Amino acid sequence: MAKQKTAVTPTREENYPEWYQGVLKVADLSEHSPVRGCMVIKPWGYSIWENIQKVLDKKFKETGHQNAYFPLFIPLSFMEKEAEHVEGFAKECAVVTHHRLERGPDGKLVPAGELEEPLIVRPTSEMIIGDSFSKWVQSYRDLPILINQWANVVRWEMRTRMFLRTAEFLWQEGHTAHASREEAEVEAKKMHQIYADFAREYLAVPVILGEKTPQERFPGAVNTYTIEAMMQDRKALQLGTSHFLGQNFAKSCGIQFSSQSGEQEFAWTTSWGVTTRMIGGLVMVHSDDDGLILPPRIASAHVVIIPILNSDEAAAKVVPFCQNLVSALKKLHYHGQPLEVIFDTKDQRAGEKSWHWIKKGIPLRIEVGAREVDGGVVSLARRDKAHRDTQTLSVHELEQKICPILDEIQASLLRKAKEFRNQHTVKIDHKSDFYDFFTPKNGENPEIHGGFAFSHWCGDPAVEEQIKNDLNVTIRCIPLDSPHEEGRCVITGKPSKRRVIYAKSY
Amino acid sequence: MAKQKTAVTPTREENYPEWYQGVLKVADLSEHSPVRGCMVIKPWGYSIWENIQKVLDKKFKETGHQNAYFPLFIPLSFMEKEAEHVEGFAKECAVVTHHRLERGPDGKLVPAGELEEPLIVRPTSEMIIGDSFSKWVQSYRDLPILINQWANVVRWEMRTRMFLRTAEFLWQEGHTAHASREEAEVEAKKMHQIYADFAREYLAVPVILGEKTPQERFPGAVNTYTIEAMMQDRKALQLGTSHFLGQNFAKSCGIQFSSQSGEQEFAWTTSWGVTTRMIGGLVMVHSDDDGLILPPRIASAHVVIIPILNSDEAAAKVVPFCQNLVSALKKLHYHGQPLEVIFDTKDQRAGEKSWHWIKKGIPLRIEVGAREVDGGVVSLARRDKAHRDTQTLSVHELEQKICPILDEIQASLLRKAKEFRNQHTVKIDHKSDFYDFFTPKNGENPEIHGGFAFSHWCGDPAVEEQIKNDLNVTIRCIPLDSPHEEGRCVITGKPSKRRVIYAKSY
Repeated sequence: MAKQKTAVTPTREENYPEWYQGVLKVADLSEHSPVRGCMVIKPWGYSIWENIQKVLDKKFKETGHQNAYFPLFIPLSFMEKEAEHVEGFAKECAVVTHHRLERGPDGKLVPAGELEEPLIVRPTSEMIIGDSFSKWVQSYRDLPILINQWANVVRWEMRTRMFLRTAEFLWQEGHTAHASREEAEVEAKKMHQIYADFAREYLAVPVILGEKTPQERFPGAVNTYTIEAMMQDRKALQLGTSHFLGQNFAKSCGIQFSSQSGEQEFAWTTSWGVTTRMIGGLVMVHSDDDGLILPPRIASAHVVIIPILNSDEAAAKVVPFCQNLVSALKKLHYHGQPLEVIFDTKDQRAGEKSWHWIKKGIPLRIEVGAREVDGGVVSLARRDKAHRDTQTLSVHELEQKICPILDEIQASLLRKAKEFRNQHTVKIDHKSDFYDFFTPKNGENPEIHGGFAFSHWCGDPAVEEQIKNDLNVTIRCIPLDSPHEEGRCVITGKPSKRRVIYAKSY
Repeated sequence: MAKQKTAVTPTREENYPEWYQGVLKVADLSEHSPVRGCMVIKPWGYSIWENIQKVLDKKFKETGHQNAYFPLFIPLSFMEKEAEHVEGFAKECAVVTHHRLERGPDGKLVPAGELEEPLIVRPTSEMIIGDSFSKWVQSYRDLPILINQWANVVRWEMRTRMFLRTAEFLWQEGHTAHASREEAEVEAKKMHQIYADFAREYLAVPVILGEKTPQERFPGAVNTYTIEAMMQDRKALQLGTSHFLGQNFAKSCGIQFSSQSGEQEFAWTTSWGVTTRMIGGLVMVHSDDDGLILPPRIASAHVVIIPILNSDEAAAKVVPFCQNLVSALKKLHYHGQPLEVIFDTKDQRAGEKSWHWIKKGIPLRIEVGAREVDGGVVSLARRDKAHRDTQTLSVHELEQKICPILDEIQASLLRKAKEFRNQHTVKIDHKSDFYDFFTPKNGENPEIHGGFAFSHWCGDPAVEEQIKNDLNVTIRCIPLDSPHEEGRCVITGKPSKRRVIYAKSY
C-alpha cells in the first residue's frame, strides 16, 4: 500500500524533532533568525501569544495584579546580591560592555565607550524589581505589592529549539511581596493553579501540578511549583512555574517594612512566569502529520470560508452567499469573544486553500460552491477529524451549531491528550523496569519511547544525579495530589512516602 | 497674599523641568532606576501605555497590519549594510560582547565567553526585519507585507529625561513592504494620519502634521512625516514619525520580488513608530501645579468614589450606598469601553484620598457622606476645574450625565491645549524678531519662552546649522497644510515658497 502523503515530512514516527520544526514551518508560526538562538515569531504564531496574553492578563488583573515595566538591563553588582541566583544564571548571560560603535583602524565598526560596570540583559527580573520594591515598601500598609510584567528576557542557551528553548524569549513575570509567609505561599499556589487551569481550559493541555525537588528549584527559591505536560514523544515539558521565594530576595534586595507591632521585618516574596514556550507545548501536544491543530479557545481565527469558484457564473452567486455568511457568523460569540471568521479570497484553487488552512490548524473549514448555494447549505470540516469527513449543514443549522462544535473540538483535544498521557504513565517499582522503560528498544524509534514513570523516591539528590547521567531522566515534580503511600525508592530501595513523576524532558 | 499651596513643588513657573519630574512623582507614574538612563514605569503610568496600545493596536489591525516579533539583538554586520542608518545609530548603541560571567582572579564576576561578532541591542529594527522580509518576498503576490511589533528598544542617550528620552523605551514599530512607490507613500501617510488622529482624539493633544527637513529625517529615509505638539513651556515635542524609506532598505537587505511583468525589482518600504514618550507629552500638555490631568479617553479609570466615613453610623449607610453606585456605574459604557470605577476604601481621611486622586489626574471624583446618602445625591468634582467646584447630582442624573461630562472634559482639554498653542504660534518675518522670540527676556523664566515661529525658510541646511548653534532652535517640520506663499527666508532673506515651523524642542 502506498504511503499516504502528509503535509509535514518527516512524520512524527519518522523523525520527531524534525517533524516539530516541520509543523512550525508549514503552519507559518516562526522561523530561525540570523542571531544565534533567537527566533522570529511570525504573525500566525504571534497571534497565539496575543491570545495567551489576553486571557492570562485578565486573570492576573482579576486577582489584583497590576502591570508595570522595569529595565531590560541589570547591573552586574545586582546579580551578585543573591548567591544561588547568580550561580544559576551566570553561565548564560548576555553581557553589555560598550555603549557605542566606532570606526577601527581598518574602517570597520568596533565596540567603543566601555561601561564602568557591565550590564546583564535580564534573564529574569527578581533583582531589578526587588530594588524597586525596597523603595516602595516602608510599612505593612504598603503590602501586598502585586506586580506583573510582560517582557522579553535572554538566557544564552547553548542548544536551542524554537519556542521550547531560545536565547531570547517572551514571557510574563509576576513579582509579589507580602507581610507574612502564609500570604506569600497562598499567592504562589494561587498563580500555580491559574496556570494549570489556563493550560487545561484554553490550551487543552492536561498538566500535572507539583513541586520541584530542591535540585530543580529556581535559583534562590524556597519552593518551586510547576505544571508539567506530556508531549507526543512522551517527554515532559515544564509549561509554567511559580516560586515561593521566602525572605531570600527580600534580604538581598532590602525589602523591609515596619510591621503592625512596629518591628522591622523582611517581606516574603514570590515570582511566577509562563513563556512563549507554551506555544511549543501546544504544537507538540496537538499537531499531527498534516500540521498544527489549534484548540478553538486559543485560536486567533475559528473558521475559514473557502469559496469554490469554478466559473464566473459560480463566482457570481458563491461570493455574495459567502459574504452574507461571513456577516452572519461574525455576529456570533464564542466564549465571550466575537467569532473570528476568515474569508479566503486569495487567487488560488479551493483545494490549495484547504490544505493551507489544515496546515495552520484552524478549527473549522467551510467550503461553498455553486451546489451549496443552490441548496442553501455549506460543507463543514473539522480540523480534528479526517479531512474528507465533512458534514452538510443549512446556514441556519450552522449558526446554531458552530459554537457547540467548537466546544466539542476543544473538549475532544483535551480528552485525547489526557488519554495519551494516561496511556504512557506507568507505575514502576523495580529499578530494572525503570531502566527498561527509559531505554529505546531495538527497532523502536529512539525519539519516541518511555513516558511518565510514577515511582517512589527516597529524597536523595544522588538518585537524581544518577538517573540524569544514566538515562537523561529527571524528577519532573512531586505531584501535589500524590497520595501518601509507604513504598521503596525505585532506585535505592530506601523507604519513601510518596511517588513522584520521572521523565525525560525538554 | 499668601501663596497657594500646590501638590507639586516647584510649580511650572518656578522651575518647569523640576515641575515635570514632580508631576511624574506625585502621580506615581514612574521612577528613576539604578540603570543609567533607564526608568521604571509604575502601574499608573503603565496603565496609560496599555490604553495607548489597545487603541493603536486596533487601528493597526483595522488597516490590515499584523503583529509579529523579531530578535532583540542585531548582528553588527547587519547594522553596516545601510550607510546612513549606521551613522545615525552607531554613537548610541548598547553592545553585547560576552555571553556569560565567570569568577575573576579576585573572585568577582567578570564577562566571559566573548562573542565572535558583537550584537547590538536594537535601536530600531529595520535591518533585522528587512532580513526576514527578504525571505518572505519572492513574487509581487507576496506584497504588501504589513507588520507591526510592540517592543523595547535601546538608544544610549547621554541626557535622559523620564518618558521623553530614556536609554530604553517601549514603542511599536510598523514595517511594511510594497510593490510600488505610490503604495508605500500612501502607507507612510496613512499611518502618519492615524498617529495624528490618535493624538487629538485620545490624548487631547493637538498636533501639526508635517514633513521633516532632509537634515532631520530618520537615518536612511527618503521622507519622514512627523506629528509635533507644543508643551506648556512652549517647546515642541515630536510625538510620532512615519518614514517612507524608498528602496534604500530593500536594497541593503535584499528585499526583491518578481513583478507582474516578470522583472526582478526591489520593494518599497516604510516604517513608523510611537513610543512611551507619548506619556511624557500627555503629562506636559495637560498637567497643572497639582499634578496630572488625564484625558478621559486614555485614562485607565474614569471616576473614583470616595466615601466620607466620619462615624460608624455614617459608614453603615455610606458604604452600601457607594457599593450600589459602583455597580450602577460599572454597567455604563464610555466610548465602547466599560466605565472604569474605583471605590477607594483605603483607611485614610476623605480629604487625603481626594488629594491622592487629584494628583493622579483621574477625570472625576465623587464624594459621598451621610448627608449625600440622606438626600440620595452625590457630590461630583471634575479634575479640569477648581477642586472645590463641585456639583450635586441625584444618582439618576449622575448616570445620565457622567459620560457626557467625560466627553466635555475630553473636548475642553483639547480646546485648551489648542488655544495655548495658537497663542504661542507667531508668524515672524524678520531675523531680529526671530532671534528675539527665542531669547528669554530679562526677568523672564528662561525655561518658558518663545513658542512656534511660523516663518519662511529658503531650504538651505546652513540655516538649520546656524539657528541650532545660535538659539538651539530647529525646524520641527514643513507643515503639510502650509499654503504656497511667496516670501523670504527669515534668516537669509533668500526666496522661499512656504513657511515652516521653527521651535526649541525636546
